[in-house]
Amino acid sequence: MECIALGTGGMMPMPLRLTTSVLVRRQGRMLMFDAGEGIQLALKQGNLGIRRLDAIAVSHLHADHVLGIPGILMFRAQNQDPGPLSIIGPPGIERFVRHTLDDIQYYINYALNFVEWKSHDTPCTWEWHGVKLSWEPLDHSTFCLGYRLEEPPRPGTFYPERARALGVPVGPLFSQLQAGQSVTTPDGRTVHSNEVLGPPKRGRIVSYATDTRPCPGLAQLLRNADLAFVEGMFSLFHKEEAEKKGHMTAAQAATVAAAASVKHLILVHISPRYTRQDEAVLASEARAQFPSVEIARSLGSYPVPLPSESQ
Amino acid sequence: MECIALGTGGMMPMPLRLTTSVLVRRQGRMLMFDAGEGIQLALKQGNLGIRRLDAIAVSHLHADHVLGIPGILMFRAQNQDPGPLSIIGPPGIERFVRHTLDDIQYYINYALNFVEWKSHDTPCTWEWHGVKLSWEPLDHSTFCLGYRLEEPPRPGTFYPERARALGVPVGPLFSQLQAGQSVTTPDGRTVHSNEVLGPPKRGRIVSYATDTRPCPGLAQLLRNADLAFVEGMFSLFHKEEAEKKGHMTAAQAATVAAAASVKHLILVHISPRYTRQDEAVLASEARAQFPSVEIARSLGSYPVPLPSESQ
Repeated sequence: MECIALGTGGMMPMPLRLTTSVLVRRQGRMLMFDAGEGIQLALKQGNLGIRRLDAIAVSHLHADHVLGIPGILMFRAQNQDPGPLSIIGPPGIERFVRHTLDDIQYYINYALNFVEWKSHDTPCTWEWHGVKLSWEPLDHSTFCLGYRLEEPPRPGTFYPERARALGVPVGPLFSQLQAGQSVTTPDGRTVHSNEVLGPPKRGRIVSYATDTRPCPGLAQLLRNADLAFVEGMFSLFHKEEAEKKGHMTAAQAATVAAAASVKHLILVHISPRYTRQDEAVLASEARAQFPSVEIARSLGSYPVPLPSESQ
Repeated sequence: MECIALGTGGMMPMPLRLTTSVLVRRQGRMLMFDAGEGIQLALKQGNLGIRRLDAIAVSHLHADHVLGIPGILMFRAQNQDPGPLSIIGPPGIERFVRHTLDDIQYYINYALNFVEWKSHDTPCTWEWHGVKLSWEPLDHSTFCLGYRLEEPPRPGTFYPERARALGVPVGPLFSQLQAGQSVTTPDGRTVHSNEVLGPPKRGRIVSYATDTRPCPGLAQLLRNADLAFVEGMFSLFHKEEAEKKGHMTAAQAATVAAAASVKHLILVHISPRYTRQDEAVLASEARAQFPSVEIARSLGSYPVPLPSESQ
């Protein structure tokens, strides 16, 4: 599993930073978080085809998070038979997309499936090829969702000496046990994988949360994430503005990530006011709270690390 | 009067060419033709503020001509009190813009004035600070308008010897006569400007026409234009495709421009399939029909030449 930061800025597309959007690739499939105006340019710059894009998960109905969706839909339609696409997001995302389809008559050659947040009592999960996508409301100036991807548990550590002791010969039966299957030994005995494997290990966790103030939903989405994309829109110099506008400082994002035991934090949705040089200030403010943090790079690729054995 | 090619491509924004959009600047005011996705990036790259943008004139309701409008509206709203903005275009342009305003809740701090084409019997003109903007339906796969800007006539050539002969002393009265005003000589005689000026000269003409096959409306819009932006989407190698899709080859655009006595032709809406090298082929195909032609450069600035005295 790998994440690519298509855009890293906030508010509006800039030559230095397109608006924040993250593409997740896993086993040949793709899922995208947010799509602001011009984000298809990043796909083209990165030579990234999206025939295998299964879903766009949208945080909220502000222009810098949705205006690129029609362009993404059209770009995907240049592939033959790309299969259905799901659009997940806040109430109103379907209306926005359908209006563009009606008003500017663009052609798409696949079905759209909309999954809108309805209420706190409605399940907020969607399955992406075995990976669980879940979402939580955040605390922004308008209704906004944060997301979390959780891979299924991986089989535990394989202990070959246990398998041998149970009469399993070295060879293909070992692989089957390692994959979590039961096998029959040459002397007719059934060996279950749990007899030769350690406890299952949790799968990898990726979080995506922008735009928001610190809030319980954010902490929930970030807990134990191996890789978390979180807004760090402002420097400490603009802390009051951040609070007022429903955003965070880079330092606040780092503080929340530290408390949630995030493994590695990538700051996104950087304000257009900041230069490349300013980014170093944001990074150092964040690092004072949490060492494993960096500012997202446009088209930066971020492999998701495996959880350590102890987790 | 000067025109800036914000984007020069067709179909979708590409790193090499944003979608076709032309910004016209005259006496500190601005008017924009078309606005596809990401066109605000060109404004920022060119360091072009749009507080004084009075109108966006839209050719048709395809994504590559309108998806950038919400971004332009928001970018303009970052100025204090920028004054009203007119959006001129085909039926449905108001519905598209109003839907985006309703669906993604962006803020604008000025009034919008919509001027939609209604019928062949409705006047198709709009006044832009003394300049006449007019439009004509073209021949595309969907209803599409081309545009023409005509400056008011300029005063004719000033003949100082005539003024002196009529008793006007050299000085400020000369300037008033040159500007078309009447003056009173020191001996009490009234001299009218037409006594000392040659016949009025026509103002400059700029045409903008994409996407279209050759058609009478196109010829009408281009006649005697001092500067014409016309689609030259395809090479002769793709002539059939051009015809089928409601487009033109570069050579066809040049042929129409020559017949319409265009002074200088800028080809826009270049297909994304063509590289920079391919552009030389398109240019040479066009030049075989009409010598004064070039392929638009991204952020290229094109001053509008004054009509020659004979026109």
